[in-house]
Formats: sequence, C-alpha cells, structure tokens
Amino acid sequence: MTTREAPHVDAVLPPDVLDALQAAVGAKAVIVAADALEPYRIEERGLFRGTCAAVVQPATTEEVAAVVRICAAAGLPIVPHGGNTGLVGGGVPRGGIVLSTARLNRIRALDAANRTITVEAGVILADVQRAADEADALFPLSLAAEGSCRIGGNLATNAGGIAVLRYGNARDLVLGLEVVLADGRILSGLSGLRKDNTGYDLKQLFIGSEGTLGVITAAVLKLFAKPKVSVTALAALGNVEAAVALFQHCNAAAGDSLSAFELISGRAMDFCLQHIPGVTPPFDRPPPYSVLIQLASTRANDPLAEAAEALLADAFEAGLIEDAVIAASDAQANALWRLRESIPEAQKAEGGSIKNDISLPLSAVPTFIGEASKAVEDAMPGIRVVAFGHLGDGNIHFNLSQPVGADRASFMAAWDRLERIVSDIAMALGGSFSAEHGIGELKVDVLRRYKSEVALDVMRAIKRTLDPKNIMNPGKVIIDA
Amino acid sequence: MTTREAPHVDAVLPPDVLDALQAAVGAKAVIVAADALEPYRIEERGLFRGTCAAVVQPATTEEVAAVVRICAAAGLPIVPHGGNTGLVGGGVPRGGIVLSTARLNRIRALDAANRTITVEAGVILADVQRAADEADALFPLSLAAEGSCRIGGNLATNAGGIAVLRYGNARDLVLGLEVVLADGRILSGLSGLRKDNTGYDLKQLFIGSEGTLGVITAAVLKLFAKPKVSVTALAALGNVEAAVALFQHCNAAAGDSLSAFELISGRAMDFCLQHIPGVTPPFDRPPPYSVLIQLASTRANDPLAEAAEALLADAFEAGLIEDAVIAASDAQANALWRLRESIPEAQKAEGGSIKNDISLPLSAVPTFIGEASKAVEDAMPGIRVVAFGHLGDGNIHFNLSQPVGADRASFMAAWDRLERIVSDIAMALGGSFSAEHGIGELKVDVLRRYKSEVALDVMRAIKRTLDPKNIMNPGKVIIDA
Repeated sequence: MTTREAPHVDAVLPPDVLDALQAAVGAKAVIVAADALEPYRIEERGLFRGTCAAVVQPATTEEVAAVVRICAAAGLPIVPHGGNTGLVGGGVPRGGIVLSTARLNRIRALDAANRTITVEAGVILADVQRAADEADALFPLSLAAEGSCRIGGNLATNAGGIAVLRYGNARDLVLGLEVVLADGRILSGLSGLRKDNTGYDLKQLFIGSEGTLGVITAAVLKLFAKPKVSVTALAALGNVEAAVALFQHCNAAAGDSLSAFELISGRAMDFCLQHIPGVTPPFDRPPPYSVLIQLASTRANDPLAEAAEALLADAFEAGLIEDAVIAASDAQANALWRLRESIPEAQKAEGGSIKNDISLPLSAVPTFIGEASKAVEDAMPGIRVVAFGHLGDGNIHFNLSQPVGADRASFMAAWDRLERIVSDIAMALGGSFSAEHGIGELKVDVLRRYKSEVALDVMRAIKRTLDPKNIMNPGKVIIDA
Repeated sequence: MTTREAPHVDAVLPPDVLDALQAAVGAKAVIVAADALEPYRIEERGLFRGTCAAVVQPATTEEVAAVVRICAAAGLPIVPHGGNTGLVGGGVPRGGIVLSTARLNRIRALDAANRTITVEAGVILADVQRAADEADALFPLSLAAEGSCRIGGNLATNAGGIAVLRYGNARDLVLGLEVVLADGRILSGLSGLRKDNTGYDLKQLFIGSEGTLGVITAAVLKLFAKPKVSVTALAALGNVEAAVALFQHCNAAAGDSLSAFELISGRAMDFCLQHIPGVTPPFDRPPPYSVLIQLASTRANDPLAEAAEALLADAFEAGLIEDAVIAASDAQANALWRLRESIPEAQKAEGGSIKNDISLPLSAVPTFIGEASKAVEDAMPGIRVVAFGHLGDGNIHFNLSQPVGADRASFMAAWDRLERIVSDIAMALGGSFSAEHGIGELKVDVLRRYKSEVALDVMRAIKRTLDPKNIMNPGKVIIDA
C-alpha cells in the first residue's frame, strides 16, 4: 500500500491570514503549535502523513463561512475534518488549513412526528444514534468508527456500514443538507421533506464528494422505528452459488424482515475456531460456506422465530442449505455474531492481510470469488483467500492472508499488485473497486484507470464550477480539474 | 392557472439539419407533418400549447447521441418526451425538436439474484411493473399515469406516487443511469451496485432535472420482494392532530409493515358519499377525519390482521381514534380504497377545484391545515377545503372546491392567487410548493420566488456547465443560466 507524493506547501500562515482567522473564530480556535497540529496531519494507521499550517475550529455555520471566505481570498487549501477516521487519505492535509468540525457539534432539533433529526456536522455518529434512541427511534447508520467519526464525514464520504441491506447508505438517510460553498456562501437546504421536487437536488453533489466541493455543516437525517424483536440463524452451505440462491429465497420470503445476510467462508470460520477464545464449532462438519441470517421486526409480537424456521426448512427442502442453527437465546445470537465479527481479529493471528473494498452485483459474486481466488493463487502460490462480509449488499471482504511461513513485510509489499488483480476482475464483472471507503488520495489514480473519460470529465467540470480556485481538499478524488 | 409566454421559434428545420437527423435515425423516425406534430405540442389537459419543428424518435442510445450532436451543432433546442404526462409543462416544446423516447423501449436485462432490472427510457412504467411481476418481484413506482408514462420521464421528474411511504421516490429506486449529455457524449453508468463510492454520484444530477441537463436513455432499477398479504383498515378521528399522532403510533409499532397511511377529511368523505354510487358510510357518525391504513408483508403467513387489531386497540386505548373498521375480505378492502380513490371524482360533481402540490414536515400538517384553511376562507368566503392524501409522506392534497353556487370560471380564475396563499403558508412551515410535479414551465417564477439566491445560483452554474449552449429543454426549471 503506497501513497502518492504530494507537494509540500509552506506550513506557515501569512500573518494577515492568521489574524483574520483568529478574528473570525477566536484565537483559541486557531491551532498553530506543531505538536498540537500533529494528530491532524496523520491518520490512525500511520499510512499517510501530511502537512498543514493551522487547524481551525469554527463553532457555527457562519464561522465556517467566514473561514472559507478568508481561505478563498488567500487561495489557501482547506481540508475538512470530522473524526479523521477515513481509510483512503481523504483527510490528509497537503498544506493549507484543516477545518475541524469538532466544535460544530449541536443536535439542533429532533422532530419525532416527522421522524427526523437535525444535526451539525461535528456530532459524533454514536451521539446521533443515542439521541435517536432516547426518542424511541433508530438512526441506522452504524460502522466500526462510530464512537469517533462525525456525521459530517459520514455524509461527505457516503458511509456504508452494517445496516445498508435494510436501510441503505448514508446518502439514503439524508433529507436536507446545509453546506458552505467554496466561496464562503451558505447553501441552506435543511429540509425535512420526503417529497420535494423543486429544482436540482443539490445536496446529492456534496454527499460522497469527500470535501472537495464544499463543507457540509449540518443535515436533516431520517429516523426509523426501532426494531423490537430479532432472530439470528446460521446456515451451512456447500458453495457460494447456494449462498446467492439462499439470499434470493430469504429476500423473496422475508423481504425487509431480512436485516442481515453475512457470508463466512470455510477458511474464515476455521481461523476463528483456531484463534478466538470461546468460539465453538456451530456444525458437526465444517461447511465450505456459512451464512449468518438475521430477521428483525418493529412489531413486538411478530413471530420471527417461526418465520425463520419455515424459511430454513424450505431452504433445506430446496437443497440450498445442508444444516442450520437458530439461536434460541440472546446469548446464542451473540455467539453467532461474535463468530462473524471476529474474523478480522482471527486473521491477524495468521500474519499479514491484504484488504480490498470491492462490491459486485450479487449475481456475479460466485464468478468473482472463483476467478479472483484463482488469480491471486496463481500470482502468489500459498496465498489464502478469506472471503466474508455483507453478501446481501454484494459487498464482499475479499481479504488475502499471507502464505503460511511467508515474510510479512514482503507479503504486504505485494498489496498494490494483488489489489489490482482483484479490482480488475471485480470491474470486469460490473463491480466497484471502492464500495465503501471512497477515493481520497489513495485511489485518485485508480479512479482514473477505471472511470470512463466522459465521467471523469463531468466530475472535473463540476469541480471547476463549484470550486474554481481548487481550495476544497485539493488533490483528492478528482485532480487536473 | 396561467402559463408563461415563451418566444415562438421558427417551426421549420434548416434543410441540412433535417437531412442529418434523417440520416441519423432514418426518415420514418423524423416527423415533420403538422398534424402528426400536434400531439407533441400540447399536453392532455390542453393547458399548454407549444411549437416544434420536428419530432425525432431515436431507437438506440447511439441514435440519441447522434441527434443531440446534430442539435448541439445547430444550436437547436431539444425537449425530451416520454409519455408526455407531466403536469407543469415540462414537456412543452418552444421551438426546436421533440426527442421522443418511444422507440427506446427495450428491457435490456432482469437480474433476479441482484434484484435489478435494466430498462431503456421509453419503456412504459406499467411494462416495467409487469416485467418485474413476471419475475416474481415488485417494481414499486406507481402513479395514475402508469399506463402511458415512460420510465425515463419518471426518472427525469423524480416521480412520487402512491408507494413513497414504503419505497421512496423514483430517485430512491435507481442504481445506475445512462445519459446522453448536451454535447452528445454518452455518460454510461448502468451500475447495479448497492455500494459504490467512486467519485461524484453523477446520476443524481439528471434525476429530477426535467430534461434540462441531458437525456436519460436507460436505467438500472431496484426490484423488491412482492408483498404477499395485506390488511386494510379505516380509523375515525376527531381532528388532524390525532391523525399525526396515530401515524407516529403506527410507524413505531408496525415500521415497514405500514404501507399506506391516507388522510380523508370529513368533507372529502361527505362528497364521496353524496356522489359516488355504491359508497356507503363506514361509520355510524361521520367523523371529522378518517385515516386509511394498510399493512403489508412479504411473509405469506405473517399475521397482519392480528397486528392491525392490536395496533388499533392500542390507539383506541390511547384516545387517538374514536372508531375503526378492519376489512374482513378483499372486497371490503377494495371498498375502503375506492372511498379514498374516488375523492377527486366526487369533487368534480361539486364544481371547480383548485389543486395544490404541497408537502410538509409531518409535524407541521395540523398547523398548515388550520392556517391555510382560514386563509383561503378569508380570501374567498364559502370556499370549501377538501384535504386528503398521503399523510405518511407529508404530501397533502389541499384541494379547494368552489363555493356552492359560484361561477366556475371566475372561481378557477383565482387559481394563482389562492395557490400562492397556500404555498406561502406551506413554505413558511418548512414545506414545499412542488412535492411531486416539479417545476417545468409553470413554476419557473415560483421557484425563483421561494428558493434562496445561493441555491438558484448553484443551479444556474450547473446548467451552464452541463449545457453551455442551453439546448436541453430551455426555459424549464431554471432560466437565465
């Protein structure tokens, strides 16, 4: 995993710009001391290191606008930061300032009747979830970094996570958006409407644009009814084709009651059984594939256990599954989920792991797993494919564990080569080389490799139109605009 | 209801342009005879009349691209037409050509495992529904014009309809889009992925832009599991506040099982009872408001009748409803739906009706109905508010029937004045002046009245960037770009 070299820009602000920023947000909210800047220059895994002259922490939308106006006048790059938890270097500053949303952290409103919550960009995702929960509602966006990532970053990167099958990506959860444009004007669109056809849907431009078109400062988000009952099951299957057929069967029969459908390959299961204390074999014989299925319902008396039993009995009759267990208690359900969630941890015990972020049309998953497994095994004999993840979304974690006894560092050095082999196959099958994590700095060249020239050209035109001075997170997503 | 005057453009094509168009799509696919052009110059209600030099009917995306290139070179306006069923004059040509998608009518693929269907823009909505149905799936977009509107138009206008509560608007049903840009290049984005974060989500620009940024030629649409059981009920309520509280109650308890929640005011019910043969009073005493509730499930054995009974019993206990009936048969359910669906027909018997297309945050609906009713009654004593519609979406049909005995023509002449009174109140409460129908030609000035200058400016910038020659449906949505 290599990173692109970016130009080093002088990390000292011109005095007049520093004065203006301090006047706009207060002296305390402009950080310039080198040690205090350090956490904003790097990301948690240490894969990227940038440079910036200051971190500015506006506390209101108007202060954000003032900061952007000052930077626009000075031609100073702005890298918006939420929780700085991105995985593709989208938040790495290459000169200019980091605009932190940490103080933009108010929950402005919760409208229970309208099923909406209005939050500022700096609210931590877990706090959005908690506020919804306290109002007896659900905000379904959920991902590993939820304790520190901020909702503005989630929206700017169109975060995915574990609830996409049932509730969609971050984009699907937004009704209204407030954005500070690259010239400092405020685009106010904090609508809480479910039907509104009044001109171009401008918010869509900013969701998923990774801070390159403007700064998201607040959003109106959808709330949902809380699930009250759920049932978890694990099915044993002979091959991945059966897993796809089982998904079709479960979707047709259970529809939106189906809240999770997670694939676990035999090797992934094996790693867990070996390395995770307390995990016990769920089946007498280890199956080539397992699928974790969850049904959930907001109706307190919904007979989901019966539904799951019927579903699995039908699947067994149809020859789709070879065995199945249904959790009879919360403890049993938690044990099944622990098995699924321990896979990355178990993989660590097996040495280096190369990760991909691909997605596919569900129908192409079996072909993909077959072709990509063969291709990486040909490229590196002994490499061990560990396939698992959100099969219901077509989002497969196609992780690669090093050959037994191989040197970890030399294995990890093959990241780019192996990732390209995997991505080429995914793309040829109508898939994506970046299902969840985005482009950031890491995949700028990959985007140029796979996107059509027409699509790149439209992206560049949009970037030029909305950010003509190229000050919004320059060098990320789309370059040469 | 008045229409804007638009410049009359010479309705004869230059000979070289006609030759080029005929060479591109075949002579038969270029209509220039005045009588054959007539249906494309008008819309079904006769409220708009335009002018065009030709109707061109390309049969492939490449032919669309060729047509657009020819028009771009000649500076000739293009008005894309699907079924020409729009209600705001978005399809009215003001010179140039009409590009009809009628021959672009293939279903390219149906991927059952991926739950997607790939259709060309000219496929009639009912045919998309039918193809899904034949594959044991559901394409949920459904609206009055579904027998003649075409999916390209539905996407270009982000159609709403009756299934929004459960499945969202047209925008929410799109995974991939193919578009011919204003310079004739093809933007190919027929992805069937549920997770794909690879740059700006360009398809969102074209969905809902009413043909002003490019021509949608094909789309990948989401399919869903078919509902297998449903239950319909009608509840009697004392006021509209109770209806909003009942929605909260139903949503929290039934979640996505709740597939319809339709408000019927006492006057709307009264009109139906008077004018629609066979409609009988559902309650002993006519209530101030009724709500039609439908629960649906994809699980064949889902005990929805029990769920509905419990839901309504709890609502009665909580004082939210005064009475309720649950349909015991399909015939009874159909009778309840007939009541709801007959309201517009019943209104016709009461003389002129002025219609609005507003939506509101659900929490603002009671205040809106109170304030708007008083305002229109003040403006025109004797006017009769007929409020009904998709309360679950905040999309209320706030129809106005003429005073008893008034002159129909002079009543209808007050359309703009009354619509403005209603829209002003909706907008002040965070609502929309165009929930479903869009802007077209009819609401260009209304858009300018209500949208912020910043939003208008970004729209104009997008329009200039993607259509610098202003040939794509000029004069619609956003002008002065």
